[in-house]
Amino acid sequence: MENPFDDTYFMKKALQEAELAFDKGEIPVGAVVVIDNRIIARGHNLTETLNDVTAHAEMQAITAAANFLGGKYLQNCTLYVTLEPCQMCAGALYWSQISNIVYGARDEQRGCINLNTRLHPKTIMKGGVLEAEASELMKRFFIEKRNLN
Amino acid sequence: MENPFDDTYFMKKALQEAELAFDKGEIPVGAVVVIDNRIIARGHNLTETLNDVTAHAEMQAITAAANFLGGKYLQNCTLYVTLEPCQMCAGALYWSQISNIVYGARDEQRGCINLNTRLHPKTIMKGGVLEAEASELMKRFFIEKRNLN
Repeated sequence: MENPFDDTYFMKKALQEAELAFDKGEIPVGAVVVIDNRIIARGHNLTETLNDVTAHAEMQAITAAANFLGGKYLQNCTLYVTLEPCQMCAGALYWSQISNIVYGARDEQRGCINLNTRLHPKTIMKGGVLEAEASELMKRFFIEKRNLN
Repeated sequence: MENPFDDTYFMKKALQEAELAFDKGEIPVGAVVVIDNRIIARGHNLTETLNDVTAHAEMQAITAAANFLGGKYLQNCTLYVTLEPCQMCAGALYWSQISNIVYGARDEQRGCINLNTRLHPKTIMKGGVLEAEASELMKRFFIEKRNLN
């Protein structure tokens, strides 16, 4: 039998979070944290709503997951995020010692890969899950924003 | 007449924050954000108290300063922090477009300088203000911690 709880399943949940951000006029990035096939935290970008550059989807999901677990380390957890994490979020993920990071679309300019942010040695990162959907949502956001201005 | 509001003055305020962290059993790092010689935000490390790797002194000070200013950018602001910022905090400072970062002690292992975290082109960083005091507090913390275990 096929496992319904695969990367695509959880990335769809992260995309649903990104759509919540989109609806609020936020750059549409969403994230969920998963342990044992169970979502324990969700987050979407709220930097405009909260007037706070630290309110990225990942940061909120990291805080919420630690709160759920009652401890600050996210060992055995996977973060699904629609966009490659930035330096700040990758830096937070470093401290969390998270086991896995799965992202959707690349962020060539501001993402942690090209900026060489160090991840924890215990962390494995992979990308490209529902990349087209995540990219499409971002493009749609910036086109709509340009048309409004 | 000498200006009483120099880097040493504000770093002393950051050190007072670090001492609050120390008293709570937290790695003693403190920060303040200053605009026009006025402190608009304070923060100290609360990662253990809050079970949250994102609760560094700088992150809290950035959020509090943006809240005070009613906008997410910290232009014309200076962050004073007792320890060189890590990747996460430097990444947050990148997004904030803060004008100046002044740190006390270096963090060769986990600090943003050796890890090459990108700062915003508008940001100027300098270090070494009350470095001995900041280092001394860190050393005292780790010695006491070792003796307790």
